[in-house]
Amino acid sequence: MERYLMIALLIVLLQDDAIAIFVALQSPEIEVIGLTTIFGNVHTTLSTRNALHLLEIAGRTDIPVAEGSHVTVTEGVKLQSSGYVHGTDGLGNQNISPPKGKPIEQTAAEFLIQQASLYPGKVTVVALGPLTNMALAIQLDPEFFKKVGQIVVLGGAFAVNGNVTPAAEANIFKDPTAADIVFTSGADVLAVGLNITHQVVLTDSHRGELAKSNGKFAKYLSKLLDVYFDYHHTAYNTRGVFLHDPTALLAAVNPSLITYSEGVVRVQTVGITKGLTIFYNKQKRVVEVTEWSGKPSVKVAVTVDAPKVIELVMARLVNS
Amino acid sequence: MERYLMIALLIVLLQDDAIAIFVALQSPEIEVIGLTTIFGNVHTTLSTRNALHLLEIAGRTDIPVAEGSHVTVTEGVKLQSSGYVHGTDGLGNQNISPPKGKPIEQTAAEFLIQQASLYPGKVTVVALGPLTNMALAIQLDPEFFKKVGQIVVLGGAFAVNGNVTPAAEANIFKDPTAADIVFTSGADVLAVGLNITHQVVLTDSHRGELAKSNGKFAKYLSKLLDVYFDYHHTAYNTRGVFLHDPTALLAAVNPSLITYSEGVVRVQTVGITKGLTIFYNKQKRVVEVTEWSGKPSVKVAVTVDAPKVIELVMARLVNS
Repeated sequence: MERYLMIALLIVLLQDDAIAIFVALQSPEIEVIGLTTIFGNVHTTLSTRNALHLLEIAGRTDIPVAEGSHVTVTEGVKLQSSGYVHGTDGLGNQNISPPKGKPIEQTAAEFLIQQASLYPGKVTVVALGPLTNMALAIQLDPEFFKKVGQIVVLGGAFAVNGNVTPAAEANIFKDPTAADIVFTSGADVLAVGLNITHQVVLTDSHRGELAKSNGKFAKYLSKLLDVYFDYHHTAYNTRGVFLHDPTALLAAVNPSLITYSEGVVRVQTVGITKGLTIFYNKQKRVVEVTEWSGKPSVKVAVTVDAPKVIELVMARLVNS
Repeated sequence: MERYLMIALLIVLLQDDAIAIFVALQSPEIEVIGLTTIFGNVHTTLSTRNALHLLEIAGRTDIPVAEGSHVTVTEGVKLQSSGYVHGTDGLGNQNISPPKGKPIEQTAAEFLIQQASLYPGKVTVVALGPLTNMALAIQLDPEFFKKVGQIVVLGGAFAVNGNVTPAAEANIFKDPTAADIVFTSGADVLAVGLNITHQVVLTDSHRGELAKSNGKFAKYLSKLLDVYFDYHHTAYNTRGVFLHDPTALLAAVNPSLITYSEGVVRVQTVGITKGLTIFYNKQKRVVEVTEWSGKPSVKVAVTVDAPKVIELVMARLVNS
């Protein structure tokens, strides 16, 4: 059976987003039909600039960039910069020149709706940042959740601590209401959380290999990764970086890299555990009615073949 | 070194509380210096009546019962009855006759403060219900957290789902603010959560042994447990019951039954995950300041020798 798989990347630009984008462009299984931008590590405007820049580096200015929302769906969430993790520009503090290209006129949400409507069930969305654009698409088009293919969410922390607070993972924390809308929308959602991505570590020696290789993406990335490596060394005392975004991307491309469990995910939107994701798979035949009752199920990744993910990332970058 | 260990039980009366109390009375390592009551499965007044009743059954009316608070520390929490789990009277729907005894004049919080002040560092509190009385003692006496020995909390769900909602365990859910006060008080707290107690299952065959034995507590309990067994069969499809309370009690009596991890526990007090406990053990050398930063550590049980717990419970009841 022929399968026509397309990937729209919802990106919050940072170094491991950059890896994910380059890996996507090097993946013969998929066609990247667009990038959408969002705030997160940097504001949306800068994220858009970075997306255009990366596509110019890659020689793929044929791929449209749709700018995403500048504000959260969640009321009262102050946008924070993660400059100390990813560099103040979100691309490791390089002084990159302004891109020549421009984003398309459609907003990210409009673009998502259009693509899902053009190719019902065929568009896989790899959501690598806060879920604001996805939530807006769901709110704008009541049929979107049916028309979109799988939504692979890089986000959440399932039965493990978060990375922004002990409760919350960064992408969910930055727009928890948007995340709750996506998880309970009825769409085919696969969540790839910190419980998975903290198992996928790119080491200093991998970075060395990238630097030595002739792959043009590899060379570019080995420089870009300095700030990200420094942060991990300071925060986690590791000489390696977590490949959050490339893992989510590859889980979309090659489902056999992970296993998952099915159940309902709700997101806490207020209080000290704001941004927390709670997964419930209904093993108890309860009489109690809770906020999880009657909601659609999603998939939550529970295991990952981490060595294989690293191997695929390295192969696709070294041979670029 | 001689060790004078005393146990004050904070009880919310129900069937596995009853087991815990009888096991405590049969434990030569400890002296039960009092019972304090609290709402939970039943209202506080009924809990007090049940505590007095159980001590009369046990022939231990020398042990004082101090009545606890009738309202939560948490604002706006509606007290719920768990009649379907424990019988509407909290003792498996037996028609028990009113006890002859009366509670002492001190409130539970006053009694706790008095005992901790009389025997500094020697009073272990086994808190088997919502932590309201403990929180009130902490608020009434700024030195209480130093004077009390270990507080063993039956409560929380660490990296597992809750039992009242997917997020929350019942004892914490019923007064989350009180729980947060206790966990962040600086006292020596050991939390025994659902991740531990769901491993400790008393089976139908154990119940049969209790019914056949000549131990007077055993015979009494085998009847009492009907409602609790029925609930577990309906809700969890198991022919056995979780020994939540006896496990916490025995962890206090014999610390070698469990292993624990140390870190900060905070409790979510609002929203859909109200009553959730989040444990953070500071493996990340973060720069981020969160609601967990700078708070005192507590101990959270992470493994339990479940067969040994069952063996001890059975031995102490059969030989009663």
